[in-house]
Amino acid sequence: MAQPRIDFSQATPPSSIIIENVEPILDCGRYPVKREVGDLLEVSADIFKDGHDKLAAWLLIRRAQDETWRRIPMRLVENDRWTASAPLLENTRYLYTIFAVPDRFATWREELSKKFAAGLDVALELREGLPLLEASAATTDPPDPEFARVRAAVESAKDQQSAVDLMLSPAVEALMAEHLPVDGGTRLATELEVTVDRVQARYATWYELFPRSAGTVEGRSGTFDDVIARMPAIQQMGFDVLYFPPIHPIGKVNRKGPNNTLHAGPADPGVPYAIGSDTGGHDAIEPALGTLDDFERLVAAARAHGIEIALDFAIQAAPDHPWASTHREWFHIRPDGTIKYAENPPKRYEDIYPINFNSEAWAGLWHEMHRILEIWIERGVKIFRVDNPHTKPTIFWEWLIAGIQRDHPEVIFLSEAFTRPKVMKALAKAGFTQSYSYFTWRNYKQEIIDYFTELTQTNVKEYMRANLFPVTPDILPVILQQGGRPAFKLRLLLAATLSSVYGMYSGFELCENTPVPGKEEYLNSEKYDFKVWDWDRPGNIIDYVTSINRIRREHTALHEYDNLRFYWADDDNMICYGKPAPNGAGGVLVVANLDPLVTHQGMFHFLPEDFGVPAGQDFRVTELITGQRFTWNGGSHHLYLDPAWEPGLIYAIHPSQHVDYIDPSG
Amino acid sequence: MAQPRIDFSQATPPSSIIIENVEPILDCGRYPVKREVGDLLEVSADIFKDGHDKLAAWLLIRRAQDETWRRIPMRLVENDRWTASAPLLENTRYLYTIFAVPDRFATWREELSKKFAAGLDVALELREGLPLLEASAATTDPPDPEFARVRAAVESAKDQQSAVDLMLSPAVEALMAEHLPVDGGTRLATELEVTVDRVQARYATWYELFPRSAGTVEGRSGTFDDVIARMPAIQQMGFDVLYFPPIHPIGKVNRKGPNNTLHAGPADPGVPYAIGSDTGGHDAIEPALGTLDDFERLVAAARAHGIEIALDFAIQAAPDHPWASTHREWFHIRPDGTIKYAENPPKRYEDIYPINFNSEAWAGLWHEMHRILEIWIERGVKIFRVDNPHTKPTIFWEWLIAGIQRDHPEVIFLSEAFTRPKVMKALAKAGFTQSYSYFTWRNYKQEIIDYFTELTQTNVKEYMRANLFPVTPDILPVILQQGGRPAFKLRLLLAATLSSVYGMYSGFELCENTPVPGKEEYLNSEKYDFKVWDWDRPGNIIDYVTSINRIRREHTALHEYDNLRFYWADDDNMICYGKPAPNGAGGVLVVANLDPLVTHQGMFHFLPEDFGVPAGQDFRVTELITGQRFTWNGGSHHLYLDPAWEPGLIYAIHPSQHVDYIDPSG
Repeated sequence: MAQPRIDFSQATPPSSIIIENVEPILDCGRYPVKREVGDLLEVSADIFKDGHDKLAAWLLIRRAQDETWRRIPMRLVENDRWTASAPLLENTRYLYTIFAVPDRFATWREELSKKFAAGLDVALELREGLPLLEASAATTDPPDPEFARVRAAVESAKDQQSAVDLMLSPAVEALMAEHLPVDGGTRLATELEVTVDRVQARYATWYELFPRSAGTVEGRSGTFDDVIARMPAIQQMGFDVLYFPPIHPIGKVNRKGPNNTLHAGPADPGVPYAIGSDTGGHDAIEPALGTLDDFERLVAAARAHGIEIALDFAIQAAPDHPWASTHREWFHIRPDGTIKYAENPPKRYEDIYPINFNSEAWAGLWHEMHRILEIWIERGVKIFRVDNPHTKPTIFWEWLIAGIQRDHPEVIFLSEAFTRPKVMKALAKAGFTQSYSYFTWRNYKQEIIDYFTELTQTNVKEYMRANLFPVTPDILPVILQQGGRPAFKLRLLLAATLSSVYGMYSGFELCENTPVPGKEEYLNSEKYDFKVWDWDRPGNIIDYVTSINRIRREHTALHEYDNLRFYWADDDNMICYGKPAPNGAGGVLVVANLDPLVTHQGMFHFLPEDFGVPAGQDFRVTELITGQRFTWNGGSHHLYLDPAWEPGLIYAIHPSQHVDYIDPSG
Repeated sequence: MAQPRIDFSQATPPSSIIIENVEPILDCGRYPVKREVGDLLEVSADIFKDGHDKLAAWLLIRRAQDETWRRIPMRLVENDRWTASAPLLENTRYLYTIFAVPDRFATWREELSKKFAAGLDVALELREGLPLLEASAATTDPPDPEFARVRAAVESAKDQQSAVDLMLSPAVEALMAEHLPVDGGTRLATELEVTVDRVQARYATWYELFPRSAGTVEGRSGTFDDVIARMPAIQQMGFDVLYFPPIHPIGKVNRKGPNNTLHAGPADPGVPYAIGSDTGGHDAIEPALGTLDDFERLVAAARAHGIEIALDFAIQAAPDHPWASTHREWFHIRPDGTIKYAENPPKRYEDIYPINFNSEAWAGLWHEMHRILEIWIERGVKIFRVDNPHTKPTIFWEWLIAGIQRDHPEVIFLSEAFTRPKVMKALAKAGFTQSYSYFTWRNYKQEIIDYFTELTQTNVKEYMRANLFPVTPDILPVILQQGGRPAFKLRLLLAATLSSVYGMYSGFELCENTPVPGKEEYLNSEKYDFKVWDWDRPGNIIDYVTSINRIRREHTALHEYDNLRFYWADDDNMICYGKPAPNGAGGVLVVANLDPLVTHQGMFHFLPEDFGVPAGQDFRVTELITGQRFTWNGGSHHLYLDPAWEPGLIYAIHPSQHVDYIDPSG
């Protein structure tokens, strides 16, 4: 800023090429953007200089751990906008930047060509071209003899026509482009970063389960073996991530009773988030669930069913957590020497001590957190759902996640934060792979459109991947309390199709919706007690869940995140959106009735062109839930949706050049 | 990026406060934003941290030449957005940044207050407050005894109620807020810059004149004395900047003749942009115009009429410019030893040598440009219109303008660049005070709305001030060739009201519109010849110009740039826009018929609320061109506009609480 510092001792002036408005970029390069393995990173920028000189520009890209940049030529699109794409083939972090130089030979070529075409004598121009040959020759070591051959041929040409033809030839153009001198060039001042996660960061189907509720005997803790027994059913429903709330020893001091009552009876198991007891802390296993060996068997059994285990990472301690005696310095110590409980004044949570991230012992605390994650990674856990990350320093998460992913780039972190929007976004920028979202409370048409447009069609898509949970152990939304089975189907359908990654908390498939009266909380919550479920309970939607997850698997358009497009539906209770497949190869269209209680009907209007259907052409459509098949023309159609039948439909669009005959029998 | 570097040897962890989305900011702080003396700089940012701690934040601001920051408290607006305003009282550059800290006392106060209100014992909380007192006391040197007094009063309080009352008292709140410890604070990583120009950068009315055309004898050069004689007429019309194309000696070698013919006759005066001859270069005066003394008299005479002189700064040389012999190294030397002419292949401009900004002698060239400007500044010129800046390096302009303005902050630079949009914007970012614009070719409603919305309602307003010229010596747009007098009135009205700064090239008031057939150029252009004008020529719009400029002077809403608001007009030929005055104190509304040939009529619909008129209330309106007066209610009105009568009207909106009686005689 102010007057730029110019080094007047240099033989050449500073470069006058400007590179700006680079995309993608996040907060001026402060944070990496996110992509997944197999993506193309498309980088674009405004690149220009004064005057009429031609330019050349390259995207430079390298893995963060490498030294050498790969050069990919950029291409002028229009109006000084340049672009290039780089394939992202590895689960790692890449750096990228841009370099641009004046292409003096191209500028000279154009001048020569215009003047010669106008019939002017270009003898001087030809002589002016020779130093350009030399400058390019000087970039090669040893000197490429080709340049000397070109020079000799120009100087000995029998006439101007021949000399001009040679200098304008594609061969010379290619030779010069390959050896463009870089003097007068500008490199972008910043190196930008892209975190390339594995595909599961974007496309995965989560199932959440309290292992102690997987049992079959009332009043007794389920075990890891009970979970192993559930594995085929979970796989059958189509889930590929199985997430457990904390499985560590539960504190015995100040333990909570059923329904969050203040004092536990002797048989009450306490809250899994009150971590730590005399049997161990964050690196141990609650004895009622099993042993470490049992856990490792569970991880292996899951893997055999195509399922990954995700663990909760909740940085807090029960009063009897080992840290409370061995690391008192990590807590808030009060003037009377006691450790401060978790509070939301005037409420107190006596079974939990929060951690003090501002103590002088912070360095040891940070490293211990790293160590704990490493332990579970070693035991085969590559996904962590982080509890309440917004109450710990964002800079801590940035350090922790980058440190873990440097050694284990495959590790995925899900941020459980339902807090202020900017705080949620900051956590995603700081490195969380996925984020909880406000989806849980977005029920009406315009709020869904607004929110998912922001998530998937603005800069937010560069760093935040919303993992949609219709419910959590903490939240049973009113729509599900009142809307019953149709509402459960509706919210599952939305979660499974609005985002490429969503999660279902067990019990949802049973349409469990008994609330604490007047609250958005479950009555007799699993958080405070053992629970035995009848997994075949009447009214369950297991078949529906199974079929939605199958549809997700079979239609790759649903594996993408930022391909969401909203379309118009005449009725305010009906929503219409699509996910076109890449390259215009069809895709998926969803039309839903957002009111679980009342039938609505009306026209919806999508753009078949978005799905690769040429304007005016017939195309085939399969409704994936009912199996109905149609031939449509145009994007405006009528739908009558009785939520007791289906709250929403999913149409697969099949573009095809000719539709001669549709077999009515399907 | 990547893993943040953390210094684990520190006793306290890094700050977890995040400051982001700062406004105003230009290209991540790479360039300054622009304001004018008397403005308030409103700075806002998202500021937040993990958890529920309260924060305090300050805007830090200082003049670039000072060392000490001024601290202005920021205020939480909503949703983690903070704001503060700083008055910009001086024509200089300021730096600003943001500093935020955890307000531990405010956090503690809230906790204490909630718990005490809930009837809890807060003895421990009160003890936890004492170290906060000490931390604040430690920020004062010598220690402020007030803190010890508070501590003693708390410790000796007769009951908890008294102690709590004291610690929650406004007096203690103020004391603590004044001495907030800054540990755990974050300062924005960048220092941002704002160029505060004098008001004339935003609000000025330019008149452009070839001095040699100010004369009264055919075939003879007008002189500076002729210009002095014109001064009262120019002042009378309401102009306050008088801009001359180059007044330096005109080259004699390869001089152009009338209408850009290749060879000049002995009496032909040549093109003023072919600068330099045996009588001198950029620091000299064309002898036919007068002497340096005459010029200085002219500057003084202008000043006496409230008019500033603006000079052209065209960095190029005629073949007989002194530089061509003394500084051959500043030119492009061809293989045969000749200097290269200006070209647009295959066209050549043999009367002009362009300057080579890439030569090894660039440093001397840059400093010579600085020296030349200093010479004219010393002679009283504080405004430069820069010719073709887009063919010289942008970094050069950034260096030159910042260097000049460091010593002469009052100097204004107008960028003459009608080139690619990004190049024009880059010049404005690099420091040009004002910019030419595409207004000259924007004639239709939607293109005017789109362009001026971009200029005045997006980030572009932070750095670019469009100085609107309906014509230039190079451009006579088709609408004026075909639309005649109504078109001249229309385009003047638009220029004078769409921007707060506009310029009129002499002859416009005479509706001069004879083109070179088929081109947007003037026939017998002043660029190539002497010219004698009849300033009272029939059909002139001198009275119109005078009254538009009077309206501009009298209505401060027209002195502002970014207060432009477009409103709906039913007819596609009619445009409606307003410029509300600050603080809802009325303002100005323009309705125009963009078709200079045909009468159009229709409803227009503005928002009286934008002008401080309460909904539903009557308000008074004065049409400023015709003097008609109305009482209106609501923003929808009908207008019939015959361009032969008036192409557009300007309504002054007078909000008033009660309108009891309007005198029909005015």
